[in-house]
Amino acid sequence: MAYNFIEGSVTAPKGFKAAGIHSGIRKNKTKRDLGLIFCETKCTAAAVYTTNLVQSSPIAITKQNLANGYAQAVIANSGNANTCNADGDIKAQMMCDLAAKALGIDAGDVIVASTGVIGQVMPIEPIAESVDELASILTTEECGASDCAEAIMTTDTVKKEAAVEAVIGGRTVRIGGISKGSGMIHPNMATMLCFVTTDAAISSQMIQKAVKIAADKTFNMISIDGDTSTNDMLSVMASGLAGNPEITSEGEDFDAFAEALTAVCRRLSRMMAKDGEGATKLLVCKVSGAKTEKDAIGVAKSVICSSLLKAAMFGADANWGRVLCAIGYSGCDVDVHKVDVSFASEEGRIDVCKNGAGIDFSEDEAKAVLIRDEIDIIVDLNDGEGKAEAYGCDLTYDYVKINGDYRT
Amino acid sequence: MAYNFIEGSVTAPKGFKAAGIHSGIRKNKTKRDLGLIFCETKCTAAAVYTTNLVQSSPIAITKQNLANGYAQAVIANSGNANTCNADGDIKAQMMCDLAAKALGIDAGDVIVASTGVIGQVMPIEPIAESVDELASILTTEECGASDCAEAIMTTDTVKKEAAVEAVIGGRTVRIGGISKGSGMIHPNMATMLCFVTTDAAISSQMIQKAVKIAADKTFNMISIDGDTSTNDMLSVMASGLAGNPEITSEGEDFDAFAEALTAVCRRLSRMMAKDGEGATKLLVCKVSGAKTEKDAIGVAKSVICSSLLKAAMFGADANWGRVLCAIGYSGCDVDVHKVDVSFASEEGRIDVCKNGAGIDFSEDEAKAVLIRDEIDIIVDLNDGEGKAEAYGCDLTYDYVKINGDYRT
Repeated sequence: MAYNFIEGSVTAPKGFKAAGIHSGIRKNKTKRDLGLIFCETKCTAAAVYTTNLVQSSPIAITKQNLANGYAQAVIANSGNANTCNADGDIKAQMMCDLAAKALGIDAGDVIVASTGVIGQVMPIEPIAESVDELASILTTEECGASDCAEAIMTTDTVKKEAAVEAVIGGRTVRIGGISKGSGMIHPNMATMLCFVTTDAAISSQMIQKAVKIAADKTFNMISIDGDTSTNDMLSVMASGLAGNPEITSEGEDFDAFAEALTAVCRRLSRMMAKDGEGATKLLVCKVSGAKTEKDAIGVAKSVICSSLLKAAMFGADANWGRVLCAIGYSGCDVDVHKVDVSFASEEGRIDVCKNGAGIDFSEDEAKAVLIRDEIDIIVDLNDGEGKAEAYGCDLTYDYVKINGDYRT
Repeated sequence: MAYNFIEGSVTAPKGFKAAGIHSGIRKNKTKRDLGLIFCETKCTAAAVYTTNLVQSSPIAITKQNLANGYAQAVIANSGNANTCNADGDIKAQMMCDLAAKALGIDAGDVIVASTGVIGQVMPIEPIAESVDELASILTTEECGASDCAEAIMTTDTVKKEAAVEAVIGGRTVRIGGISKGSGMIHPNMATMLCFVTTDAAISSQMIQKAVKIAADKTFNMISIDGDTSTNDMLSVMASGLAGNPEITSEGEDFDAFAEALTAVCRRLSRMMAKDGEGATKLLVCKVSGAKTEKDAIGVAKSVICSSLLKAAMFGADANWGRVLCAIGYSGCDVDVHKVDVSFASEEGRIDVCKNGAGIDFSEDEAKAVLIRDEIDIIVDLNDGEGKAEAYGCDLTYDYVKINGDYRT
């Protein structure tokens, strides 16, 4: 492995500071709702966005601002998605203007993001009144990536931070990220908010390539509930302060960067899936033996999305027939008579299906495996070399509770 | 309207008898688990099946038996799906043999279906030991379609029966059906078990056409949980005893038959959606103004499948943003800035979104509309003439409870 996980997140790379406060967008005063990430130097930057036709206003503004491949700050709020609002674009632009003024940078260098309820007018006053205070924290010891990670949480129950260190071009490079879930999450872009920083020197064009590679293997393989959000965004800013020779083309350095970025994204993805709305378990579907990688991806996603399987996993019920069923309707090229299925966790591994048919297994042993909080659903299609992993969670009473009356 | 709803179901048309008993496939002795439908004369017949690559053994055998376009009986059980079993085809064939012997007909004229748990060996003894008793009931007054409708229920809470009467070719014709849900239900055939009988005279070829038309507008537009079952089947048997001139081509008579058949299927579909696992409400998404019918179908299905919207409806929460979101990721050709959304029920109608943006509405009035048990989600895309309806239900604690430990 060409990287090591380290403590921290977006402020681990050189040049970055971050903060998060309660501004008043949310009524609950104990919950931070406005976050800021700032780099002392202008960064190369790129992002990927939701594929939903309904897109938030912050996404529209961020796309404009990142068109030139540069950024220097992120402003992000929770409590309101600023989506489907007649004045949404104006408000998103105002957020950029306010952040730029407070930080003394150009408004065109600000990435803006919002998450929360769709279709309610975005209140700009709380941001206008607190952005200077937020910016001033960056120069104090209170400054912290964890506060920013908290500020973007909605129904998340834990903050999500990860960072790695890698040697690229003879220099130590760091990559760190924060993200939030945890409902309305489904493959096909980015499926949530995630902000990544790095001190690697890398061109905007190559960041864009690396972001796509990392997202396809991680965030695009998560499903919490099958709903693709309107606000999803994964952005990466690179300060270049690590001093490595700038990565401007594919090759060894680019591969090392993409691998390290993917590692950060994978760790955040697993955290997001495990913290899916109401979830009690992380589910990882590991598919091998597919005719093609595309078939492996299709099968892994289909299994991880099955409501019936998700409910069975909540009940620690080894109902492998639901795995077979989900493989069958995946639309992928599969010979169902060759399929093997096993379940595994820290407790061990249990085989439950061979050649598409059930085999004898101990229900007690299966229960012991499935009672754990990280479950692998292992599918071998025995029909080729294609592999893929998808990430999800169980379906629980609490998912229904959380989403039955989210707005009030 | 060229038809009237009447009492009864599969025994309303001339020539048909039905029965259902507890045979012992299920442990619970108070629950019927084996049903029989028999016609005194050989029928023209056709069926549509699940599109899942993993298909039950009864489907394989029924396909063989219906290849010649004729059938005379249906045998169906609940409690075991006879799917993913090494000896499944043999057991399904044995079910046909047993029914044929008891009824004095050819085994090749039997439609066989099973529903229940996947991947557990099908016990044939309970059927062998009780099929004569079951057949003997057909000649007594205990004979009844309702018992048969009960025998195919799994997690269904109510029996599903419907029948209509129509004048076709100058004669009164009847069409009746029974069906069962209620989980693992998703568009793309047939999404459940449904057996329809009619005394209309109609060729096998034209039944096949009519079944496809009816299924596309009804059963293929239901989603309970996004899982397409391995056992789904919709079969139609026509005795011809109504004495109408045989329908052998398209035209007025065929259209009248297809319309009446669709009416039976639509009523059963609404009953199935309303009785979806754990459901407290029927949801009907009515889409109009789409560029094409295909776009309308895609939007209606996407909305009805959204877990987030389903949970919001359970909570009687007018979270229309989730409707917009689901329209946005439907993959259909939609101008999101033209979309209007309303909710309606017996209580009245409330507009919540115009031109893709929220409008002021009374939360109290919305609550009053949404607290009812049959909710219309009305979407006008204002962009063409395409229309479609999809059927679903809310997502509740009980869905999770039912599916968290289904096998035990």
